[in-house]
Amino acid sequence: MTATAFAPATVSNVACGFDVLGFAIGTGADGSGTDGPGDRVTARLVEDGGGDAGGPGPGQVQVYPAGQAVRVVSVAGTAGSGFERLPTEADRNTAGVAAMRLIAAVRPGAHVELSVEKRMPFGSGLGSSAASAVAAVVAVNEVLGRPLATEALLPFALDGEAVASGGRHADNVAPSLFGGFVLVRAPDDIVRLPVPAGLCAAVLHPHVEVLTAQARAALAPTVPLRAFVAQTANLGALVAGLFTGDLGLVSRSLVDGVVEAQRAHLVPRFYAMQAAAREAGALGCSLSGSGPSVFALCRTRADAERAGAAMQAALGQAAASTLYVSGVGPGARIVSTL
Amino acid sequence: MTATAFAPATVSNVACGFDVLGFAIGTGADGSGTDGPGDRVTARLVEDGGGDAGGPGPGQVQVYPAGQAVRVVSVAGTAGSGFERLPTEADRNTAGVAAMRLIAAVRPGAHVELSVEKRMPFGSGLGSSAASAVAAVVAVNEVLGRPLATEALLPFALDGEAVASGGRHADNVAPSLFGGFVLVRAPDDIVRLPVPAGLCAAVLHPHVEVLTAQARAALAPTVPLRAFVAQTANLGALVAGLFTGDLGLVSRSLVDGVVEAQRAHLVPRFYAMQAAAREAGALGCSLSGSGPSVFALCRTRADAERAGAAMQAALGQAAASTLYVSGVGPGARIVSTL
Repeated sequence: MTATAFAPATVSNVACGFDVLGFAIGTGADGSGTDGPGDRVTARLVEDGGGDAGGPGPGQVQVYPAGQAVRVVSVAGTAGSGFERLPTEADRNTAGVAAMRLIAAVRPGAHVELSVEKRMPFGSGLGSSAASAVAAVVAVNEVLGRPLATEALLPFALDGEAVASGGRHADNVAPSLFGGFVLVRAPDDIVRLPVPAGLCAAVLHPHVEVLTAQARAALAPTVPLRAFVAQTANLGALVAGLFTGDLGLVSRSLVDGVVEAQRAHLVPRFYAMQAAAREAGALGCSLSGSGPSVFALCRTRADAERAGAAMQAALGQAAASTLYVSGVGPGARIVSTL
Repeated sequence: MTATAFAPATVSNVACGFDVLGFAIGTGADGSGTDGPGDRVTARLVEDGGGDAGGPGPGQVQVYPAGQAVRVVSVAGTAGSGFERLPTEADRNTAGVAAMRLIAAVRPGAHVELSVEKRMPFGSGLGSSAASAVAAVVAVNEVLGRPLATEALLPFALDGEAVASGGRHADNVAPSLFGGFVLVRAPDDIVRLPVPAGLCAAVLHPHVEVLTAQARAALAPTVPLRAFVAQTANLGALVAGLFTGDLGLVSRSLVDGVVEAQRAHLVPRFYAMQAAAREAGALGCSLSGSGPSVFALCRTRADAERAGAAMQAALGQAAASTLYVSGVGPGARIVSTL
C-alpha cells in the first residue's frame, strides 16, 4: 500500500508567542484552492511486521539493515526548495527518523519506503523540517492502517524535527499536524486555539538564508523583567482575542518586545516591511520563526493581499522573494492512497 | 446625598500571571452570603459644583482648601485591618486621591466627604489599597449622579492606588472594580476573562507583614530565557483553560517558575502550605500578590474548604492566620444610598 500525505508550512513565534505559538499556512496561496506551501511525503509499505515485537515474521525476508525500518528512496522538490541539500540517509532525515520512531512504537518489523517532495523553501523560517516530519508520520500511519489517532502522532513527528533543530520544539510541528492556531504549553501539552472568521495571513519569504542556530545564538540569555511582563500580557491578550474574535485586541497584542529586535538584523529591510504591512492595514507583522520570512496577520484576504504587496515593495531590490497569501489553514492530510 | 460602595479584596499575579492577572474574592467567605473581605467607602456630597469649571458657583461657599475637593472624615475598620495606620489627609489617602481625580475630571467644584471602613487586612497581598481606591470612585460616581460608566472609573482608581504602590498597577484595581478574572494587557487595556463554573478559591492570610516594596526588591532584574518561555506558555494556556473550562489545563498552567521562588522566603512555611493545598486537591496554589497571603484555586467549594484547612494546618504555629473561602466574585457595588 502507498499513501501520500501533505503537511503545511507554518508560522511560529507569531510576535508575542516566542517558542510557544504557531499557525498553519492555508491553501489557496495562489487563489487556486490547491495546497499552499508544505511538504508531501509518500510512504510505501514494503513489508508489514504484523505487530511482531522483533524483526520479520516467519517466511519474511529482512531487506533493511538491522534496526532500520525505513529507507528514503527519493528527496525531490520544487525549484528553490533547497531539497538537494537534505540528507537521504533515513536516520539523518527528519521524515526518516519520524517514520522510524513511529514504526518502532506501533509495528516493529514493518518496513517502509519514503519519497519526500519539498514544496516549500528549506531554511525559510516556515517550519520546513516540521512539515517533512509531520507528512511522514501521517503517511506512514495511513499505510499501517491508522493504528494511531492524529493526536498520538505528535511525539514521533517531534522526534523527527529534533534531528534538524536539535530539540523537541512543537511550535511548528503541532500547527502543521493539527492546523489552525496552536499554543504549545509543553511538547506534550498542545492547546488548540480558535481562529476568528476571516483571519488571513500574508507571508513573505525573502530569498536569503537565516540558520536557526545562528538566530538562536543571536538571543540574549535573559529577558528584562519589564519586557517579560509586557510579553506575558500580550500573549494572554492574544489568546483571549482569538477566543472572543476581538481583532482589535489581537492587533494590540501582536507585539514582540523581546526577540524581534535581536533578530531583525538577520532579515534585510525588516522594519521597512513591518511598517509597510501595518500601513497597509495589517493587524500585526513580525518574523516567522527565526526568519527570514515575515508574516502579517490581517482581517480579510484583501487586506492580506495589500499587506503582502506592501511588504514586497518595501523589500524592493534587497532580495528576491516569494509571497504567500492564505487563511489560517487545516493540518496535515492524506492527499492520495494507492 | 450619601452612597456607600463595597470593593472586594483581590488576588493578583495568580501564579503565572505576574503583574498581569487578578481575580476578585467573592462573597460568602464565611458561608453567610455577606460581603467577603474588602473595603467600604461612604461618600457624602457636601456641595455640588454643578459642572462649573472652577471653584464654587455663585452663592456657594468654598468650605475646602483651594484645589482640595475631598475630605476624609474617618478611617475605621475591623480588628486586624490595620486601619489605624492609614493616612487621613485626602491627598495621601488612596481613597481620597482617587476621589479627587474623579471629581476634577467630571465635576470640578463639587466637594465630597469620605468615610473609609476597612474590612480586610492592610499589607496582606490582597489589594487593600486598590479596594479603597475602587470603593471611593464607585461611591463618588454614585453621589454625583453616575456621570461615568464603571469602565471609565478605572483610571481614577489607578491614580489612587498609585499613592500607595508608587505605580499605576491595575492587577488589583481592575478585578476589584470589574469582578471576575481579569487580564491587564496595559493599565488602559483590560481584558475580562470567563470564570469556569464552580471555580472556588481558598485564600489564607498569615498574620505577618510583607511590604510590597520589599517584595519588589527581592526580584532579580532579568528572567532566564527558558523560564520566560515556560511562563508565557503557562499564561497563554491558563487563559485558554478559562475560556474552554478545561480545569485540567488550568491546573497544569497554575505554575510560577519566575517570581514565586524569589519571594517564598518572605512567607513562613510557604512551600509546606503549597504542597498541602495540592495534596488536598487544589488546581494550583501560589502567593497572592507579593504575599504573605497564599491562594489556592479549586474545582468546588468543598475542595477549597479542604485546601484552605490543609494550608492552615501546614502553617501551624508559625503564624496566626485568617482563611477566606469563596467563589471568584463580582466587582465593586453600591451597598446603600441615602
